[in-house]
Amino acid sequence: MAIWLDQTAGDFEARFAAFLTTKREVSEDVNATVRAIVDDVRIRGDEALIDYSSRFDRVDLKQVGLRVTDAEIEAAFAAVDDAVIEALKLAAHRIEKHHARQMPKDDIYEDALGVGLGSRWTAIEAVGLYVPGGTASYPSSVLMNAVPARVAGVERVVMVCPASGGEINPAVLVAARIAGVSEIYRIGGAQAVAALAYGTQSIAPVYKIVGPGNAYVAAAKRQVFGTVGIDMIAGPSEVLVIADGENNPDWLAADLLAQAEHDAGAQAILITDDRALGLAVEQAVERQLKTLSRSETAALSWRDFGAIIQVPDLQAALPLANRIAAEHLELAVADPDRLLAGIRNAGAIFVGRHTPEVIGDYVGGSNHVLPTARSARFSSGLSVLDFVKRTSILRLGPEQLRELGPAAITLAQSEGLDAHARSVSIRLNQG
Amino acid sequence: MAIWLDQTAGDFEARFAAFLTTKREVSEDVNATVRAIVDDVRIRGDEALIDYSSRFDRVDLKQVGLRVTDAEIEAAFAAVDDAVIEALKLAAHRIEKHHARQMPKDDIYEDALGVGLGSRWTAIEAVGLYVPGGTASYPSSVLMNAVPARVAGVERVVMVCPASGGEINPAVLVAARIAGVSEIYRIGGAQAVAALAYGTQSIAPVYKIVGPGNAYVAAAKRQVFGTVGIDMIAGPSEVLVIADGENNPDWLAADLLAQAEHDAGAQAILITDDRALGLAVEQAVERQLKTLSRSETAALSWRDFGAIIQVPDLQAALPLANRIAAEHLELAVADPDRLLAGIRNAGAIFVGRHTPEVIGDYVGGSNHVLPTARSARFSSGLSVLDFVKRTSILRLGPEQLRELGPAAITLAQSEGLDAHARSVSIRLNQG
Repeated sequence: MAIWLDQTAGDFEARFAAFLTTKREVSEDVNATVRAIVDDVRIRGDEALIDYSSRFDRVDLKQVGLRVTDAEIEAAFAAVDDAVIEALKLAAHRIEKHHARQMPKDDIYEDALGVGLGSRWTAIEAVGLYVPGGTASYPSSVLMNAVPARVAGVERVVMVCPASGGEINPAVLVAARIAGVSEIYRIGGAQAVAALAYGTQSIAPVYKIVGPGNAYVAAAKRQVFGTVGIDMIAGPSEVLVIADGENNPDWLAADLLAQAEHDAGAQAILITDDRALGLAVEQAVERQLKTLSRSETAALSWRDFGAIIQVPDLQAALPLANRIAAEHLELAVADPDRLLAGIRNAGAIFVGRHTPEVIGDYVGGSNHVLPTARSARFSSGLSVLDFVKRTSILRLGPEQLRELGPAAITLAQSEGLDAHARSVSIRLNQG
Repeated sequence: MAIWLDQTAGDFEARFAAFLTTKREVSEDVNATVRAIVDDVRIRGDEALIDYSSRFDRVDLKQVGLRVTDAEIEAAFAAVDDAVIEALKLAAHRIEKHHARQMPKDDIYEDALGVGLGSRWTAIEAVGLYVPGGTASYPSSVLMNAVPARVAGVERVVMVCPASGGEINPAVLVAARIAGVSEIYRIGGAQAVAALAYGTQSIAPVYKIVGPGNAYVAAAKRQVFGTVGIDMIAGPSEVLVIADGENNPDWLAADLLAQAEHDAGAQAILITDDRALGLAVEQAVERQLKTLSRSETAALSWRDFGAIIQVPDLQAALPLANRIAAEHLELAVADPDRLLAGIRNAGAIFVGRHTPEVIGDYVGGSNHVLPTARSARFSSGLSVLDFVKRTSILRLGPEQLRELGPAAITLAQSEGLDAHARSVSIRLNQG
């Protein structure tokens, strides 16, 4: 049973504020363990990877090899349903088309003084992609991370995935091949992150590491940050559905449960101006819960973190939505464009009754790696921009230096930086 | 005396690799201290700020007030040289013009299936700017951080700066006013970072914190990351100068020392194909060192981390430069465009003999907050993009859902996510 909040109630603000800051994750302190593993891989390289894989994944890498072979990838294609392969190809194609539009353009120009200025974008040369093992091993996430990297022009996309008991989900291998991943290693955990960051005898290091993982992987990414770049550390998923009274409650219940089934820490929120709809959705959730294979997880999420918020009118939903800053926001209303203009903080917005968030998880074309835990207030979903970097370019001739030099000297002197001032004045005096 | 490396020597690769990984910073473990301060500010708010400011900055905030007043800012304008004020205005104007070109454009479109896709950019609502006290209190850095935030459309730009002994550098207050900073508080250290992240009775929280600081500030930023966004954690500054034999050695020596004077951990590197020039620059550095007010700092930096690398020809400098991935790269050669095309990893490139890096520190228009410690391999300098965030938009009608829905259902089922599949199928069956 999710909580009910009524915006017209006197204690609403206090209850909503408490709801907003509820923690949905237990933060495990695994830093010391992870530090030891990272240091060990840094020193012993492949040998350490073999040891940890034997211990944690029950796989003998000396036997099966560190790197996944072409033959194994071909075998994966044979093992996966054709319908799934076709769906992955459709998804990859749509992701590629959409992300190609995100590629930033160089901007090289001369200003009125004749100073040359520029921004030049280049791809990161090598990127690592962490893919979890077990039930969280999602081929769709492989596409969402690897396709933008390839669109950006990254030459080496290096995937790591633990082979729990020797196995890697064949659909993950298929997705990797479709997405253009260059190398795949069957390692996971903090040891895989360390191998990507520092390299080993068999694995050349990368410059940035992306992809989701458990507490150990997250801690390892934080520890190697600086040596390499990392993406955001994702928390449990969340959806906010803003709905008027004219919805089919079963549709909305299915959408809420699609988030809830991810994780007991996931969050599903409904905001509606129609109390009757809210009640009907609540009943539909209870009904549908019984038929899900992951009903236990979904039930925990809905009970502990689910919410139905009743507002006097839909416009009143906007400030709440901006404070919630949801990863996923559905606008299931008759006139979504009216609300759309007022939304400032959201990872992704799904417009209208026929755009369930799940389309964005797979085949919409936009990325499903999105900011969680209210971080859409200050950050964005994964995009091509995460795989490129910008170099500034400045170009002066003697004239431009005569024009701008004196101001630079004045500021350098006022900051007490003599050598800064001299590096300009020496050119003006002898120029 | 900097080290000499000769690329034609047999041990070059080993020595260069060691040189690349030399640590230039002592990492102080201040995490526990910082954790206690952050928690205390979170609980006690203003009271905690008053206590820490009394202890660390010897200032009684109950007496002078937490917030810097308009009258104080006006007094600062009276206290600062007109030439400095004019130079700051010129710098701010040029930074604003350049950064306005970085503003990303929304991209809303329909694809061939009629699916609506979009990327919409919005400014972060409130940003905090940390400005160090004492000798590292640079008005130019206030401009470099605050102007892009204002260009992006950030409504609240909140500056914090410790008032060591009661004083804030008046030029910093002038720069803040010119840059359009909205609020200034005289607090510093981990306590200021905590106040920005969590808010206090007097200070509303922000969503992102930028700006340089000491080990305590850096640790506090790492700790509040997640609750708010943060910028990169900057290390000591560095310059790489690639020079042919036709340079004035005094100019290049001045450029190398302009980095070295920042910090004993700063790094200045010269790569040249002309041994005689290298020797002449080395002598010029020794000569100029004697006349600097910060000669002790500069001498330490040059002795411990400075380098002159001799290459057989200038093209051979390119792979080295890409491995060094310098924050600042000067191309002091006759044909800089030939080299420019081969540079992939650099924070900013200064093209030709008349573009000393110092112009970029102040009045070039590009940003001087740049990736250090080889992180230009995977990250970019500060820009308008750091103050905006992107929301994805997806919009399907019944037809588009019929087209794409089956593939989404296939993938959801293959990932074992029933509720995901249902959220699409329920609309297809009843749609």
